[in-house]
Amino acid sequence: MSKSYRVAILGATGAVGTELLELLDCRNFPIADLKLLASERSVGRSLRFKGENLPVESVNDHALENVDLVLASAGGSTSKKWAAVAVEKGAVVIDNSSAFRMNPEVPLVVPEVNPSAVANHKGIIANPNCTTILMTVAVWPLHKIKPVQRIVASTYQSASGAGAKAMAEVKTQASAILQGQPPVAEVLPYPLAFNLFPHNSPLNDAGYCEEEMKMVNETQKIFGTQKIKITATCVRVPVLRAHSEAINLEFEEPFHPDEAREILSHSPGIKLLEDWNTNHFPMPIEATGKDEVLVGRIRQDISHTCGLELWLCGDQIRKGAALNAVQIAELLVAQNLLKPATAYVFN
Amino acid sequence: MSKSYRVAILGATGAVGTELLELLDCRNFPIADLKLLASERSVGRSLRFKGENLPVESVNDHALENVDLVLASAGGSTSKKWAAVAVEKGAVVIDNSSAFRMNPEVPLVVPEVNPSAVANHKGIIANPNCTTILMTVAVWPLHKIKPVQRIVASTYQSASGAGAKAMAEVKTQASAILQGQPPVAEVLPYPLAFNLFPHNSPLNDAGYCEEEMKMVNETQKIFGTQKIKITATCVRVPVLRAHSEAINLEFEEPFHPDEAREILSHSPGIKLLEDWNTNHFPMPIEATGKDEVLVGRIRQDISHTCGLELWLCGDQIRKGAALNAVQIAELLVAQNLLKPATAYVFN
Repeated sequence: MSKSYRVAILGATGAVGTELLELLDCRNFPIADLKLLASERSVGRSLRFKGENLPVESVNDHALENVDLVLASAGGSTSKKWAAVAVEKGAVVIDNSSAFRMNPEVPLVVPEVNPSAVANHKGIIANPNCTTILMTVAVWPLHKIKPVQRIVASTYQSASGAGAKAMAEVKTQASAILQGQPPVAEVLPYPLAFNLFPHNSPLNDAGYCEEEMKMVNETQKIFGTQKIKITATCVRVPVLRAHSEAINLEFEEPFHPDEAREILSHSPGIKLLEDWNTNHFPMPIEATGKDEVLVGRIRQDISHTCGLELWLCGDQIRKGAALNAVQIAELLVAQNLLKPATAYVFN
Repeated sequence: MSKSYRVAILGATGAVGTELLELLDCRNFPIADLKLLASERSVGRSLRFKGENLPVESVNDHALENVDLVLASAGGSTSKKWAAVAVEKGAVVIDNSSAFRMNPEVPLVVPEVNPSAVANHKGIIANPNCTTILMTVAVWPLHKIKPVQRIVASTYQSASGAGAKAMAEVKTQASAILQGQPPVAEVLPYPLAFNLFPHNSPLNDAGYCEEEMKMVNETQKIFGTQKIKITATCVRVPVLRAHSEAINLEFEEPFHPDEAREILSHSPGIKLLEDWNTNHFPMPIEATGKDEVLVGRIRQDISHTCGLELWLCGDQIRKGAALNAVQIAELLVAQNLLKPATAYVFN
């Protein structure tokens, strides 16, 4: 009998939580037992997994007993409260919040970039921010060949980054506007339908928002170098689910776009989408539901001898969150870093 | 009696044409006679101007007689066909198409940047591309103080840039998607509602699209220097009317953001919109219908000692097209570069 694991999803009813459930199923993660944990509000609901209805339970000390792996996606304060409890009770926690990402004791992992970092875990492994994951998957294969000196990134981030309620709000706003009514913004700070605005996460004294500093700091940690200079402008756009990024890269020496294209076409987690004849490049509706980061419009930057421009789209909920977490869990299994359960295997 | 002019609007029924009509009215441009010219398709329609219904006429040799000023916004091929005719018959043509912009004989003018260039006209003055106008208005006041070395621009361009039909199409697509129907793309190459895509203008061999090269070449011409290096990624987003741009600037020496803010707060055509406490910066819905380019999020670029980041939104139809053209016409009047008519003044 192959090894299997007792898994808990913390934040099971959210946008990322439900995606985690789907991925654990379709990727046949070896599950011995699955607990769906959420806040009191969701208790009483049930979610389907492999033909069974599983009840949503409240997260508490008892619920975190006899669990080998916690996939947490319930926000920073929930993670801070429960991750240590879960670890103390013997589980490994893969956390999707920003709570532990910059903690030097916690590996921050994108499996296509720094898979070996998982081995250093002390109970918690952090899943990077969505925009960071998408950018690092696309830039790392180039950086490995010729070090990137500087990145200027501009993002086009979908409503899904603000959760399922924000996705619903954009639709409601669009519907109101089409009927000549004013849009109502309750989840998001401003109307997003037929509009856009700089990312509304808290600003630091330098005028950068948290989302932008995540791209800067997390990328440096994942790449294992502080030398790479990064600036970002993060913008929320009225797209439902996938994020897009315009990435300007400066290298130490010239990087021919054909060489970059060749490298990226063989790199894990990337799908090149470039049809120069029909002007067809990655679009968020094409990235939605896909595992790969779609990359295209690879160009020599005409403003810089050692510059390269590229464009990418990736599913924010999938590779930008849930898939990356499940891939980390798969790394743990492959490297025997997760203590297996002895209970039955689902199906 | 003050001087007044016989004006023709070529492309009067389009999105920019109707905006021109409104601006000539509200800015009290001294009009002696106004002709509304369009393609055969629109003949028979009439448009209201200062309480009168003016008929839309077909453009032909006869229609261009006895005209002092032509405001053309009917596409490049129409401009190429009729501008020379109008000039030969004695008119000055302010052309909103890309047909003459890079012609060394034709001034390319943003009144806030290079007003004196109008004096060199030989009958035709070109109105720059919308993205160029918005960027140059914001960057020029800084460039005058400390020369900009390099610009990395990413745009967030509304449907209006593709015309009134594209604006209608986005709404129709959004409505279809909200009803669970597939969106239909007829004007635009791909669905734009709840989606976005790299600007679909023709690509050159270097992989830059025409829209991007307009930002590069037109800015260099308007600024009067080839030294400034520019790269751009132009993206169409599901916004109805105003464009947004994330602008990364590199100077020869450090430029303190407070100094930049102080300069821009006194610069023509700009309105600073920065509320760091409430995370409120320019949004396209706020720029819609406004004359000013809204500028905000002025930050020291943390990836470059001499770098500055800024964010702007501007009404693509207004300052990005019609208003800039009318401002050029006003410059011609102020500098006595337009031959006045002797007929009656409207109202």
